[in-house]
Amino acid sequence: MPSKVSSKTMANAIRALAMDAIQKANSGHPGMPMGMADIAVALWRDHLRHNPNNPHWLGRDRFLLSNGHGSMLQYALLHLSGYDLTIDDLKNFRQLHSRTPGHPEVGVTAGVETSTGPLGQGIANAVGMALAEKMLAAEFNEEGFDIINNYTYAFLGDGCLMEGISHEVCSLAGVWKLNKLIALYDDNGISIDGKVQNWFADDTRKRFESYGWNVIGPIDGHDTEGVSKAIAEAKKSDKPTLIDCRTVIGFGSPNNAGTSKVHGSALGEEEIAATKKAIGWDHPAFEIPAEIYEAFDAKEEGAKREAEWLKKYEAYKAKYPEKAEELERRLRGQLPDNWDDVVFEALSKAALEAKSVASRKASQMALNDYAPALPELLGGSADLTSSNLTNWKGVEPLTADNMLGRHISYGVREFGMCAIVNGIALYGGFIPYCATFLTFSDYAKNALRMAALMKLRSIFVFTHDSIGVGEDGPTHQPIEQTASLRIIPGMDVWRPADTCETLIAWACAIEREDGPSSLIFSRQTLPFVNQEEVSGDNMAKGGYIMQEAPNGAASLEVTLVASGSEVALAAEARKILTAMNIQCRLVSMPSTTVFDRQDEQYRDQVLGEGRPVVAIEAGTPDLWWKYIRGRGTVIGLDHFGASAPAGELFKLYGFTVDNVVDTVQKLLNKGK
Amino acid sequence: MPSKVSSKTMANAIRALAMDAIQKANSGHPGMPMGMADIAVALWRDHLRHNPNNPHWLGRDRFLLSNGHGSMLQYALLHLSGYDLTIDDLKNFRQLHSRTPGHPEVGVTAGVETSTGPLGQGIANAVGMALAEKMLAAEFNEEGFDIINNYTYAFLGDGCLMEGISHEVCSLAGVWKLNKLIALYDDNGISIDGKVQNWFADDTRKRFESYGWNVIGPIDGHDTEGVSKAIAEAKKSDKPTLIDCRTVIGFGSPNNAGTSKVHGSALGEEEIAATKKAIGWDHPAFEIPAEIYEAFDAKEEGAKREAEWLKKYEAYKAKYPEKAEELERRLRGQLPDNWDDVVFEALSKAALEAKSVASRKASQMALNDYAPALPELLGGSADLTSSNLTNWKGVEPLTADNMLGRHISYGVREFGMCAIVNGIALYGGFIPYCATFLTFSDYAKNALRMAALMKLRSIFVFTHDSIGVGEDGPTHQPIEQTASLRIIPGMDVWRPADTCETLIAWACAIEREDGPSSLIFSRQTLPFVNQEEVSGDNMAKGGYIMQEAPNGAASLEVTLVASGSEVALAAEARKILTAMNIQCRLVSMPSTTVFDRQDEQYRDQVLGEGRPVVAIEAGTPDLWWKYIRGRGTVIGLDHFGASAPAGELFKLYGFTVDNVVDTVQKLLNKGK
Repeated sequence: MPSKVSSKTMANAIRALAMDAIQKANSGHPGMPMGMADIAVALWRDHLRHNPNNPHWLGRDRFLLSNGHGSMLQYALLHLSGYDLTIDDLKNFRQLHSRTPGHPEVGVTAGVETSTGPLGQGIANAVGMALAEKMLAAEFNEEGFDIINNYTYAFLGDGCLMEGISHEVCSLAGVWKLNKLIALYDDNGISIDGKVQNWFADDTRKRFESYGWNVIGPIDGHDTEGVSKAIAEAKKSDKPTLIDCRTVIGFGSPNNAGTSKVHGSALGEEEIAATKKAIGWDHPAFEIPAEIYEAFDAKEEGAKREAEWLKKYEAYKAKYPEKAEELERRLRGQLPDNWDDVVFEALSKAALEAKSVASRKASQMALNDYAPALPELLGGSADLTSSNLTNWKGVEPLTADNMLGRHISYGVREFGMCAIVNGIALYGGFIPYCATFLTFSDYAKNALRMAALMKLRSIFVFTHDSIGVGEDGPTHQPIEQTASLRIIPGMDVWRPADTCETLIAWACAIEREDGPSSLIFSRQTLPFVNQEEVSGDNMAKGGYIMQEAPNGAASLEVTLVASGSEVALAAEARKILTAMNIQCRLVSMPSTTVFDRQDEQYRDQVLGEGRPVVAIEAGTPDLWWKYIRGRGTVIGLDHFGASAPAGELFKLYGFTVDNVVDTVQKLLNKGK
Repeated sequence: MPSKVSSKTMANAIRALAMDAIQKANSGHPGMPMGMADIAVALWRDHLRHNPNNPHWLGRDRFLLSNGHGSMLQYALLHLSGYDLTIDDLKNFRQLHSRTPGHPEVGVTAGVETSTGPLGQGIANAVGMALAEKMLAAEFNEEGFDIINNYTYAFLGDGCLMEGISHEVCSLAGVWKLNKLIALYDDNGISIDGKVQNWFADDTRKRFESYGWNVIGPIDGHDTEGVSKAIAEAKKSDKPTLIDCRTVIGFGSPNNAGTSKVHGSALGEEEIAATKKAIGWDHPAFEIPAEIYEAFDAKEEGAKREAEWLKKYEAYKAKYPEKAEELERRLRGQLPDNWDDVVFEALSKAALEAKSVASRKASQMALNDYAPALPELLGGSADLTSSNLTNWKGVEPLTADNMLGRHISYGVREFGMCAIVNGIALYGGFIPYCATFLTFSDYAKNALRMAALMKLRSIFVFTHDSIGVGEDGPTHQPIEQTASLRIIPGMDVWRPADTCETLIAWACAIEREDGPSSLIFSRQTLPFVNQEEVSGDNMAKGGYIMQEAPNGAASLEVTLVASGSEVALAAEARKILTAMNIQCRLVSMPSTTVFDRQDEQYRDQVLGEGRPVVAIEAGTPDLWWKYIRGRGTVIGLDHFGASAPAGELFKLYGFTVDNVVDTVQKLLNKGK
């Protein structure tokens, strides 16, 4: 796009908007936008394929700001190039309900592809998006019809590169040969504590070469034409590319550039004036001359590119109508028409067979039932495939040479894996899930949170869910992890009791369109639990009456509430209590988070409206107290486990029929 | 130590014990011990300086198994070289209450320096130990008296190297030039999912060179003499060393060696017989010939080495008695004699000054008060020093050239930082703390858990503790993090309300000898909260009556329970309620975890024995229900925050005096 406006002037417009908006908010991070402005111009003016009028155009390149604190860079670019983001939005930077929050948030701002801020996760999302692009292309493109064909560009800084997750995901990007992933590194030698040399002296270029990346640079990050050339070169590589751009943080600020002072707070009116003078910008705050807008404007070019793409797509659709329809269905996130039948049949079969298996095995059985009907299902494990049982019958492993594989060995990289899954979910076309041991959900914690914050359809499978892990000992035995997952706002957590509940947990996770789910499965065999009527609708409520008090609800004396492996235990205890003529109800609670969304009346009814409650779960007891508002107690675990056969541990820690029965007796006597 | 027994035979003894113990337990990981046995012989026979009769000898080299699933390797070595670990202990591998748990556990087994299993954290602990050694040496050694002088050896595998934390900590080890850290890499090309090439194709040697490490290899990991030479070479380097040892996993097993089949389960009697035949081992299970015991026995040599060291130490002590006394005090973990006075004075001053400051600032004030009296205090931050306010007046930054610095810039590496802190705590001589934003405690979660599991005196500082973060938005606003920390078994969590509580929180964390503490501080200013009598003893109970009902306990109508920033809010509400003649008690609960350890009578009394309770905290409400067993409610947050000025968010989400007053009124009316 030739223009009368120089690249320097364009970059200065970004700097000015960043300084002004941050000053007005008196909050924000000017250092990065000012430092990366020239790089941004190179990418957005010369390379980025996008259409501001349709931020969801499938053919667009993806742009991610892994160093998300530099959000004003992205907002300035979106505004200037013609997205639905006004100068008033910029003036509202970081204000309540604005479209310009402190860090970029997907769903809030048109053109923002992912929410960033927690460092290192943006580049991980980018790896996921680039992988999804490569996989969808392999599946849907046809000779002469490169329908799926875009680059993924990520900006990142020293912080992202220090974070361990950058190691995990960039190593994978190398293995997968994600040649359309191009990362631009803001190599400014400064982080918040000052000059990085005393805590970050990596030879980053060498490091990325060790991952099998194409590395370009160091180049001058303030030479827009040089950066543009480097991007052009990167596009030719058969590997992912890192472009090492040497920059000055806060470029232009006479007194603060090149120091950490410019990183995270407004420059102040005086320094802004000095900076504008120094860079030759003499326009009032928030005022951008028309010719600069024109130089940035990508609407016309974007419309043209989308039209070209659409033309190609229509021809593709004419030639391959079924494929196009399937692609559209998958991109809409719509499940196949026969989905409900698939679930119903699987559930009917499971209820009939009444198999007693480990719930991780029940999960694999569910996958065997569901996967053939769901080509969008994309599995994976952090090097525990044979333990997590996440692969289904006949699924092929994904490799660089087989992008049609639908099970991914992520290696021992829990955090990277989950953040990549988020990237895949953001790209669309897949329902991705991934797995590790429940204890090691800890390693991935913030990626799980980001999935919830972004309301992604990511599914996280966690097996080996309690002291039932046994001999591997306390490092591998989750205690607090299930509770930790439940309190992530918006995360649905399922801990099913048997094959039927496992099928429903998977179905609910797959069907959920507005948030992630964690599926928690046992290592050890769980008995199938009988119930009068197996009802998927009941189970899908998260908590339900599995076995009513023998003489009916009116006779109820005590309600046992349990999840997962403790449901069968509670059922056994109920039998003994029944023999003692104690009227006991068994509530199975596979998902407290889903149960909490039911109306109050249903919840009260299920829990027994004021009658004593005993909750049983082999994990942190604390969260269960909210279901025990009057008399009652919790049989849980508030200490670490130990290395021993699982059966001995359950006994040692009181997960026995005798203890449940004793507890109920004491509770009822106490009240009498 | 020349011996008639060949190194091959010694290695085979390890292999035999590993196979036998795992077979007997029918559980465990034979692949690694069989693969690394020759490397282990090279290190333990030719290099490791240790005394099996005194596993706590200060002068010992540290040995860590970062790939902790290979625990039988370590147990075999400990047993064979003369530690207090019998053949019966090995026969009890992975059994309840045994000294040979599934993964190595510090405190359970003599000679085990850290608990490992969660991959990557062992090498992180090793970095912490090597750093502690270098710092203590710089502080305490004198010309001719290298009292502190040991190597730190870590075994690690592909899994550790895939984990992101290995990137974080090995980068730091390079920066710090930890030349006495030697890592031996079990480069066998196999992980659980199979041949690693499809998910782990890093050029690891190049990668470690990029961190500034000395890299040796690849060498034949089954050539004991070659490995021994490499270790000798490593000792001469002025950098940390990685020795890349090519090995065959499950070496010796005719049918399973070199495959993932041998990683994680017993070989089976038949394959064990075949393996023993193949490696030429013809002794019954668990039987080791006397000459092999003799070849391994390190007791005599160890006693001699310790005696030499002791002689030197006695001379040092004679020449530098005060220094020696101080070193001994610090290694005992004993606080200075004047410690109680220091705390008392600081608290008296704070109560008098009644300053309203952000609690992160109050924390820095506490550090300024305490640090001069505590030379063992060692601070740090994950590149947020100026935000976490973890540096005290006059403290110098630690760098490779200044090992006397007592504040560490860890870079943006939360997980690595916390695991390094655990390593420092394990080494002793320091009370280490480190800091990041509370939200990013997520990144470090499993290291926090490991600190609790190991009962370490690690202190974790987390600032920016709620929606009070404001404009940085939901990615940076903790909601569920405080609750997540509280449910880690054994973790003490403090969220103090003002300068006085902050001083006590720090004091309790510093004094606690049997577990870690998390200190949670606000970004925003918190009003000083008046109370009739400022009592450190009260605060140290975790929860206490801060302001009694105006007409005394007997008149109590409602108890407000709050922590941190919500205490002042509750105090304001109490004023209004008092004006309405509602008898309201204010309970400040800076630490629920400490409060939970008080006796039942105290807890019931503080909470108001059956009277309604309203708990207020700007975070996950769920954990508070356990304090509200009858009538009551929780004012909390079960959703994500937003990017806006903090004051607006508190108002939007109901953290206002009006809402607290309304809630109490409704609660009381409802019950009347």
